[in-house]
Amino acid sequence: MKRIVSVVMLVTALGCNQPKVDKKAEGEKIMQLSKDWSQTVATKDVEKIVSYWADDAFVMQDGQPPFKGKQAIRQMVEESFKIPGFSISWQPESVEVSDSGDMAYMIENAQVSYTDSTGKRVTHHNKAVSIWRKQADGSWKNAVDISTGDPSQNK
Amino acid sequence: MKRIVSVVMLVTALGCNQPKVDKKAEGEKIMQLSKDWSQTVATKDVEKIVSYWADDAFVMQDGQPPFKGKQAIRQMVEESFKIPGFSISWQPESVEVSDSGDMAYMIENAQVSYTDSTGKRVTHHNKAVSIWRKQADGSWKNAVDISTGDPSQNK
Repeated sequence: MKRIVSVVMLVTALGCNQPKVDKKAEGEKIMQLSKDWSQTVATKDVEKIVSYWADDAFVMQDGQPPFKGKQAIRQMVEESFKIPGFSISWQPESVEVSDSGDMAYMIENAQVSYTDSTGKRVTHHNKAVSIWRKQADGSWKNAVDISTGDPSQNK
Repeated sequence: MKRIVSVVMLVTALGCNQPKVDKKAEGEKIMQLSKDWSQTVATKDVEKIVSYWADDAFVMQDGQPPFKGKQAIRQMVEESFKIPGFSISWQPESVEVSDSGDMAYMIENAQVSYTDSTGKRVTHHNKAVSIWRKQADGSWKNAVDISTGDPSQNK
């Protein structure tokens, strides 16, 4: 009987092949990634900044054509840093992880600043949604990134 | 031996408790929902339009404060229909479903039109991301909806 139970347990384990996902822990991991990423942007290290995106990531920002894939995104980052006084930072607001732990989405609040032609400092407040996909190596990468103006933050 | 195999199979089935998700079929269902929803908007049936959103849905649009929850969203829909000549329609571009079939996201292209104070017809082209959650009753509802201006569609 002991042997049957062992076989049953083994087959159950193999058959499932889906370990229980700790959604809370995965969500915290992604919240931390978002915070780290925002701090990384301040270093202006383009390669490090771009490493948070998946290879086929899709970035959408108000008033700009969508950026699809890492090469287009890298260019977008490089161009942004050419804008006088450009800076961007954000704070994660909430995260939701799928039951299978392969997909997650986050709501973020972002601030984009630059210096205009008269030397005045301009700051835009955005609401952002980022979608994260777990990669084959177990790391989370940003697959979709969209932001839009949020006047309720302009105080 | 036969009996052991049966027990093993039964326990495997029970242990998993996660039927294989047909991600393609679920994705097609959501694509169809998106198309149906866009057509429903043309009917101006507010209750029917609002029924596509989850109770705690979150809507973000450029230049407007975020709308959180069905009551705020219903008001937003009602206000939109008061804008002279207001119309909105969209087409799903792509959909991705989580392995567990509980979460999905879609990229959409949207057109928002209205008549301005001079009687001129104005149309904005937006890129949108919608996040869908499977509800307890098996239906998919929109949980997050964010759109941003896409000048690459202005031709």
